[in-house]
Amino acid sequence: MLTYNLEKKGEQTLYGYLYECIRSDILCGRILPNEKLPSKRTLAKNMEISVKTVENAYEQLLVEGYVRAEEKRGYFVNAVEGRAAGNKSAGNPADGNMETGKEAGMETGINADRKAGIKTDMKVHGGNGHGKEEWFADFTSNYKVYEKFPFSTWAKIMRETLSYHDMELLEMVPTLGIEPLREEIAKHLYEFRGMEVSPQQIVVGAGTEYLYGRLIQLLGRDGIYALENPGYLKMTRLYKNHGLSYRYVDIDGNGIRLDALRESGANVVHVSPGHHFPVGFVMPVARRQELLNWAGEERGRYIIEDDYDSEFRLNVKPVPAMQTLDTDHRVIYLNTFSRTLFPSVRVGYMVLPPKLVERYLETVSFYSCSVSAVEQYALASFMEKGYFERHIRRVKLYYKEKRDGLLAELKRTPLWGKCTLIEENAGTRFLLRVDTPLTDSQIKWCAAGRGLNLSCLSEYCKGQTKETGGILLISYGDIPKGRMREAVGRLSAVFG
Amino acid sequence: MLTYNLEKKGEQTLYGYLYECIRSDILCGRILPNEKLPSKRTLAKNMEISVKTVENAYEQLLVEGYVRAEEKRGYFVNAVEGRAAGNKSAGNPADGNMETGKEAGMETGINADRKAGIKTDMKVHGGNGHGKEEWFADFTSNYKVYEKFPFSTWAKIMRETLSYHDMELLEMVPTLGIEPLREEIAKHLYEFRGMEVSPQQIVVGAGTEYLYGRLIQLLGRDGIYALENPGYLKMTRLYKNHGLSYRYVDIDGNGIRLDALRESGANVVHVSPGHHFPVGFVMPVARRQELLNWAGEERGRYIIEDDYDSEFRLNVKPVPAMQTLDTDHRVIYLNTFSRTLFPSVRVGYMVLPPKLVERYLETVSFYSCSVSAVEQYALASFMEKGYFERHIRRVKLYYKEKRDGLLAELKRTPLWGKCTLIEENAGTRFLLRVDTPLTDSQIKWCAAGRGLNLSCLSEYCKGQTKETGGILLISYGDIPKGRMREAVGRLSAVFG
Repeated sequence: MLTYNLEKKGEQTLYGYLYECIRSDILCGRILPNEKLPSKRTLAKNMEISVKTVENAYEQLLVEGYVRAEEKRGYFVNAVEGRAAGNKSAGNPADGNMETGKEAGMETGINADRKAGIKTDMKVHGGNGHGKEEWFADFTSNYKVYEKFPFSTWAKIMRETLSYHDMELLEMVPTLGIEPLREEIAKHLYEFRGMEVSPQQIVVGAGTEYLYGRLIQLLGRDGIYALENPGYLKMTRLYKNHGLSYRYVDIDGNGIRLDALRESGANVVHVSPGHHFPVGFVMPVARRQELLNWAGEERGRYIIEDDYDSEFRLNVKPVPAMQTLDTDHRVIYLNTFSRTLFPSVRVGYMVLPPKLVERYLETVSFYSCSVSAVEQYALASFMEKGYFERHIRRVKLYYKEKRDGLLAELKRTPLWGKCTLIEENAGTRFLLRVDTPLTDSQIKWCAAGRGLNLSCLSEYCKGQTKETGGILLISYGDIPKGRMREAVGRLSAVFG
Repeated sequence: MLTYNLEKKGEQTLYGYLYECIRSDILCGRILPNEKLPSKRTLAKNMEISVKTVENAYEQLLVEGYVRAEEKRGYFVNAVEGRAAGNKSAGNPADGNMETGKEAGMETGINADRKAGIKTDMKVHGGNGHGKEEWFADFTSNYKVYEKFPFSTWAKIMRETLSYHDMELLEMVPTLGIEPLREEIAKHLYEFRGMEVSPQQIVVGAGTEYLYGRLIQLLGRDGIYALENPGYLKMTRLYKNHGLSYRYVDIDGNGIRLDALRESGANVVHVSPGHHFPVGFVMPVARRQELLNWAGEERGRYIIEDDYDSEFRLNVKPVPAMQTLDTDHRVIYLNTFSRTLFPSVRVGYMVLPPKLVERYLETVSFYSCSVSAVEQYALASFMEKGYFERHIRRVKLYYKEKRDGLLAELKRTPLWGKCTLIEENAGTRFLLRVDTPLTDSQIKWCAAGRGLNLSCLSEYCKGQTKETGGILLISYGDIPKGRMREAVGRLSAVFG
């Protein structure tokens, strides 16, 4: 028999609370499709509330389609799998969180801002803007790592930059970015990514999404852009806004499938070979070579190598960038400092193959560089003095400790016996395949009911949801140490 | 008889110098079409150089089409009007300057960077990058005003911002920009431009060209964009790169012509009603109202009000923005701090009509704000403490003194008797209509020969060059005080 703890209702109306509880149980799979709800009278008596209250709650569930009323028989639960998105209209705060959480899970260089966007959304629309704080633990976000950033060092360097460069900081910034910064980036790429590039190939801009806009103008809007599936699907918003054609191309365990890519007719492909989003694997060299061969087969084919987060891979040396294998001027390398420094720093860069540099200068260089001089000089100095390298090591350690802590707790729970780790050395997150009868929606709802924000691999897939069901994306960067045990315990409890 | 001062040849070869001199005289109209050049022998004797040198110079002129050889009669000058663009292939440094100067003349918010772009171009392509310094006086540029910027105050505020905000500076910036800055901009717009807008309508971004990109995504790429003619024609590069349709729409003395606008089929029109580029006039209220009526006639019609440089109008109070008349949510106001502060500050903003704000948040807000937090907080503080207002007053005074100095000198020259001033209170530049038989190309070449960089209104016109011939654009911001008399004297000498 259904019953709920009325003490937890908080400031909600009684009927609203009851509605919430039942709805959550339906979405969570605790009440199964076609199950009969207790009669209004029975439930009212059982919970010591008025029949009118139960009636109002049932009415609301009816209106929203969670239950159906069968004449003279009572209320029955509908099959509501995959309904999460539709719930928005109900306007309850939990939905809001769910949406925010979902967005927060997207964390390539290009998406780090989405959170900002959403926060503002909420503000403008009268929301509370506190989405994140309401979770007991958020397994979708790696935002708080910025707290490890050596701000006082950064501030010192900014002050020095202001004193040392003086009026020079007011002058026009060259369109590709200031020379010293491009030199430091070239050095960094050589040491960390094995890339031998000239500073003249490097374009600095206000974040990777900004540079992507330039890139589209460079490569043209007549082509077809291909995207990994699963992958960073939100990229399609950018494609749509630019009026581009795009295709989803399935991946296998080694990366994007060449047969599917050929079939798609695409001429530009966006991949993250160093750290697949969201799975985290590295594309092996054989597949990289196949992809490069594909590019070489026809004029105008290009590979955009999104190298976000490759710096944080644990236990192994970072894999050299795909760009290092490119002898045919086909790879455009893209990365950002918003992930390696802190979220508000709007500095990304791309490395163009030499043949594209000239075209860039001809077609797109009339745009100004979008990053302020002082920030560019400060960043160059931060890198030159070795702080950047040191910070990356520190962040890697931070992620390693978080991950080790999480795994240690996980091993103590019943969940450990029914799950498999995938890419646990990817850094920033790993995947957890759970042997469970629950659907992904049910998993998310159950987790939400326990104060956990979760996202599943299926959210990053177009089609083929069957194979990818029951795989959780576990980002651990934002789980406070003191909550790790409890958070993992609650996670385990989701699966009974 | 032709003769040239060989002492001025500098490091050029003798024949190269001779070629340059003759070519310049041809382009300048000092040697007329069909005029016969002296025979090689005569010129050689006259200038005390070898016949071979003259022969080489003539040969070069012949190859490039400046002269023709008529059998047994000698060398005759061809009609070469309008050849300037084609000269590039000759590869002489003066051409390079001419190009740079031309670009430097473009100075709306959107174009301030072009210089940077060109500088880099030159660097990459092995040029010297010093274009500007080679002119005795550059009448096309207002770049150096940044030297008036109170850098030490700015640096102090940046330092304070770093100390006061601390870690907060690392956090994600809301997509529209930080609240305090948007509040200060709203206050500024109220006081200076008569606009009553909410900070929620303001979007901060890395320069107006960046915001323009967002705007295109917001308004859609299916429409037709209209541009004033004459006007900021380089805008078409941005339209082209975004794959948009656009039309040139003629202006009359009051601004864009409504009949021509209707005929164009455009639904978005880009205007600068507060300070027409490059003419400088203010669009009178009647025309503004007509334009607003046009926008109101059909769904999806919008007016982009580019308000660049309106702050610097002399002698009168700034005219309220067109946005203040907009009751129908049709005007998008655009401005930049790159012009009012200093060139390297990549901060622009737009004011959306309330109805577009929501659409913006839905369609484009997934992009991050492209301006770093520290710069936004510093700018907010700079404005809040009244430094921005004070700086604008100072810059206005700077322009006024430059202009007054120039006019005082102009009155002492013969040119004064054959010219008319147009929009001399526009600030930053005025137009000078000269009664002269010279074509615009000849004017520019003669001026270049005297070390002056000049641009003409016809360069900003599509078609209709006849009516706009002989009108010079006189930007005075970069003429050093000590050179004003000499510069104006040389300008007068161009017209004999």
